[in-house]
Amino acid sequence: METPHLVIDGVKMRGNIERMAGVAQERGVALRPHVKTHKIPRIAGEQLEAGAAGITVAKVSEAEVMAEGGIEDIFIAYPLVTESKIRRALRLGRTVSLIVGVDSLEGARRLSEAAASEDAVLDVRLEVDTGLRRTGVPAEEAANLAATIESSENLRLRGIYTYRGYVLADGSPTLDLERAGLEEGRLMVSVADQIRERGIEVEDVSLGSTPTAPYAGGVEGVTEIRPGTYVFYDRMQARLGVCSLDECAASVVATVVSRPREDLAIIDGGSKTFATDVQPNAAPLNLEGFGHVVGHPEAVLERLTEEHGMLRVGREDDLAVGDTIRIIPNHVCSTVNLHNEVFLKDGEGGTERLKVAARGKLE
Amino acid sequence: METPHLVIDGVKMRGNIERMAGVAQERGVALRPHVKTHKIPRIAGEQLEAGAAGITVAKVSEAEVMAEGGIEDIFIAYPLVTESKIRRALRLGRTVSLIVGVDSLEGARRLSEAAASEDAVLDVRLEVDTGLRRTGVPAEEAANLAATIESSENLRLRGIYTYRGYVLADGSPTLDLERAGLEEGRLMVSVADQIRERGIEVEDVSLGSTPTAPYAGGVEGVTEIRPGTYVFYDRMQARLGVCSLDECAASVVATVVSRPREDLAIIDGGSKTFATDVQPNAAPLNLEGFGHVVGHPEAVLERLTEEHGMLRVGREDDLAVGDTIRIIPNHVCSTVNLHNEVFLKDGEGGTERLKVAARGKLE
Repeated sequence: METPHLVIDGVKMRGNIERMAGVAQERGVALRPHVKTHKIPRIAGEQLEAGAAGITVAKVSEAEVMAEGGIEDIFIAYPLVTESKIRRALRLGRTVSLIVGVDSLEGARRLSEAAASEDAVLDVRLEVDTGLRRTGVPAEEAANLAATIESSENLRLRGIYTYRGYVLADGSPTLDLERAGLEEGRLMVSVADQIRERGIEVEDVSLGSTPTAPYAGGVEGVTEIRPGTYVFYDRMQARLGVCSLDECAASVVATVVSRPREDLAIIDGGSKTFATDVQPNAAPLNLEGFGHVVGHPEAVLERLTEEHGMLRVGREDDLAVGDTIRIIPNHVCSTVNLHNEVFLKDGEGGTERLKVAARGKLE
Repeated sequence: METPHLVIDGVKMRGNIERMAGVAQERGVALRPHVKTHKIPRIAGEQLEAGAAGITVAKVSEAEVMAEGGIEDIFIAYPLVTESKIRRALRLGRTVSLIVGVDSLEGARRLSEAAASEDAVLDVRLEVDTGLRRTGVPAEEAANLAATIESSENLRLRGIYTYRGYVLADGSPTLDLERAGLEEGRLMVSVADQIRERGIEVEDVSLGSTPTAPYAGGVEGVTEIRPGTYVFYDRMQARLGVCSLDECAASVVATVVSRPREDLAIIDGGSKTFATDVQPNAAPLNLEGFGHVVGHPEAVLERLTEEHGMLRVGREDDLAVGDTIRIIPNHVCSTVNLHNEVFLKDGEGGTERLKVAARGKLE
């Protein structure tokens, strides 16, 4: 097998899938994993088999790929605002159970108009910003927008959702995941209650990232968690204390192509192989380098150019030209996204080549 | 056309291609563009038509895709060290003119052994490190390695090459491109002379990145330049003073999907759409944000999550949900690499959808 390539330890992956399914079951909430981490219908299928109620995606194209792969319950956790995408969602909604996100009056108007023109009713969830300051209506405006949605004949308000990861309400990152998760859960339940006070039903209160899902999912009134990264885990999650490095199921296999200096080994993977969105030395994670070099804990993947990885090694390190190493990436979701295929090992000597089917799509 | 997508202004691209061909001609050197920027055989073909002598790639897989696309003169500017890749290169060398990189004794041994087993002679160029501290033999060791290569019956030493971009010999980045380029050129010519003093012929002295090629290419004794980014240019190159923002031919088209706060607009492209390897606020470029928002110079693409771009906008800014904007990425090479396809506009109303054929490959 040529390098660089991304290898998935199927045994670890299945362990991760089952553990999170167990967390959801214990908390009494539904699990709707975000498949952006793997973008592979086959793996989504394994999550469903282990008890997930459905899946989450960020794009219509991802939903289409997953539906084609046999997934029948899909939440597009993203505001769809262009007519063509809304029409694609409506089309998809005829064959699978589909919910789409909405976070603005204008967005609701567009969804409603498109649905009306096809005599359809679109299930929607209202996105609430709980601190990440990206999409999502501010909590204090949620009830008003919910009322508008409720008044539209072609939209059915299913509930509310949020995503925020390991930040607090003011947007600051934190390593106190219990605090972050409980705060996230309580905020969302309070928003749901505000909407219910208007006489509007709120069935779904959906939230939770890999780091916060176990805590947020335990808050009374929460109905669903949507973690994604847990399927593989990564170095960032290990640093957050969510998993051990040994539980990380995805790693990049690379070859040492040069050893030009005593303290430097060059591998055949750079920024087109390892994602660079989780940078070294950034607070609060302060990761050293772009990945964890398995079996060479002192080695630091210090710099990347497009196809070169510069590994600072000890002078005594015996890495030689032609050696193969394995690296757990800082952020697995964006790293998988760089690869056309991954290699899934079944733990019994078998390796299956899987296409990252939903990557690189127009939305 | 759905968003986000990458659009190429064909008129600007052709202008860029012709200008660099003109630079090479004026300096009296060959132009062998690195196609890692676009990874599209059709565009490589346009570079050849405009006068390029051949192309440069970083991977065997890229070479294979380009050969399949009709390109007949290819330099793999990367040390190939695994048997399977070397054999693929040997196979390719039977149908196209091929040169491969080498930068170590062990690498030379492996190339030679594989070539011998097929009774072939492999054309190689010796890579010299001139400051970037990645692959490449240190300058002072080049002559010894050249002598070893020369003594191998199955390797033919064609010359030497380097890449370093806008750094000086000590590895520090600089905005003084003339100094960087002249230094790069003189260093390489002096290495070539050291090798010749051993009685070894050095036909090719190949170097030059988009920022340094015009200067390094003018140094007496240099025979070839290998810039890549110039085909599209990007915000980084504009900041370096190599081009104007208006000459940047590639940009990402995105849609405003949410305008949750007065000072915040959210677009449907994040770190899976815009490369993050050239980070904001990093010296010496100190770029603000992840791209230049065309027509909204005050807007800053401040943060990215995977599918969300957070645009800090003025309170007076009239960007609304559904609006389309165009953003010139910080680093176009790694940004193109995120996309499966690009949309090439011919300037006469026609748009062609081109597959980024050589992206995401195993090497």
